[in-house]
Amino acid sequence: MKASEPGYIEDKAALQHRLRRIEGQVRGLQRLVEEEAYCIAVLTQITAVTRALQAVALELLDDHLSNCLLGPEAGGEQGTKAKLAEATAAIARLVRS
Amino acid sequence: MKASEPGYIEDKAALQHRLRRIEGQVRGLQRLVEEEAYCIAVLTQITAVTRALQAVALELLDDHLSNCLLGPEAGGEQGTKAKLAEATAAIARLVRS
Amino acid sequence: MKASEPGYIEDKAALQHRLRRIEGQVRGLQRLVEEEAYCIAVLTQITAVTRALQAVALELLDDHLSNCLLGPEAGGEQGTKAKLAEATAAIARLVRS
Amino acid sequence: MKASEPGYIEDKAALQHRLRRIEGQVRGLQRLVEEEAYCIAVLTQITAVTRALQAVALELLDDHLSNCLLGPEAGGEQGTKAKLAEATAAIARLVRS
Repeated sequence: MKASEPGYIEDKAALQHRLRRIEGQVRGLQRLVEEEAYCIAVLTQITAVTRALQAVALELLDDHLSNCLLGPEAGGEQGTKAKLAEATAAIARLVRS
Repeated sequence: MKASEPGYIEDKAALQHRLRRIEGQVRGLQRLVEEEAYCIAVLTQITAVTRALQAVALELLDDHLSNCLLGPEAGGEQGTKAKLAEATAAIARLVRS
Repeated sequence: MKASEPGYIEDKAALQHRLRRIEGQVRGLQRLVEEEAYCIAVLTQITAVTRALQAVALELLDDHLSNCLLGPEAGGEQGTKAKLAEATAAIARLVRS
Repeated sequence: MKASEPGYIEDKAALQHRLRRIEGQVRGLQRLVEEEAYCIAVLTQITAVTRALQAVALELLDDHLSNCLLGPEAGGEQGTKAKLAEATAAIARLVRS
């Protein structure tokens, strides 16, 4: 990993694959609404998309903590403190979303 | 609302509009990853998509409760009980997702 | 159920039992911190308490929808609309918490 | 911080204070149910307790990441990997709870 690369660089292709699947799930939602599917069926599908997004977020966070916070790029004690504050703020947003 | 129409029928166009915006947000996520954006920027954007999906879910649920559970279509005491169990299961999935 | 009784009246004893168990879990958390338990052990226990509270919330919501929204106490179409708006606001707070 | 001390050692008193307040909130919930308060009032109070617990969890996590993962106690590359896996599992439980 170079200094300019994000923590997920080694998972980039897998991440894109998952995001394309999520895009397909959102189009599936549009189809359900187009066909006037039952409310509960649409809600169940929304829950599935939300969970898929959360799984991507947790994977990204894991990559970030491993590679950006703990890796050789972390950049000294000062840089680490700032990055930690940033990471915990991102975790808080995830937990509350 | 006819018996065969879903609770969100009057909001159908608005729902589709919101789902297309969410599809655009997911494509935006793919672009961020493609350009190797910083992990935290991607995470922040995932949180935004998750919240947009939750807002759609809450709107659907409101439509469902108003029109399918309480409306004239509800279908007698037995039908209402079954529908209520189904709605609370959907709410539980939302709360835990 | 009388008009002045809450929707959970028939589950009142069971609810109190669960809330006392949750109180015990919170005291267990204090003991863990007192004994300087490992951070992750405390976090795991917090998650358990949060889930127990959510389960109580979902049960209350079910009682509320069955007895206050759909029951004979619901109080006419106007009263029902107001109660529905109130219930969906409570669900939104739960989903976002 | 000694090797045997948890990451929250410097916040221990503040944590205990917050956990005692949460215990009081849970007893407040029991009082509401005892007095047969309106369902929505009880639900609103449950949401407040859940949020207070989440805030404690996020603070603990921040202490853990700062002091146990990044601190001098982290214990070499192997120990750090194991601790990171443990931390991300705890974050996943929080996000999904």
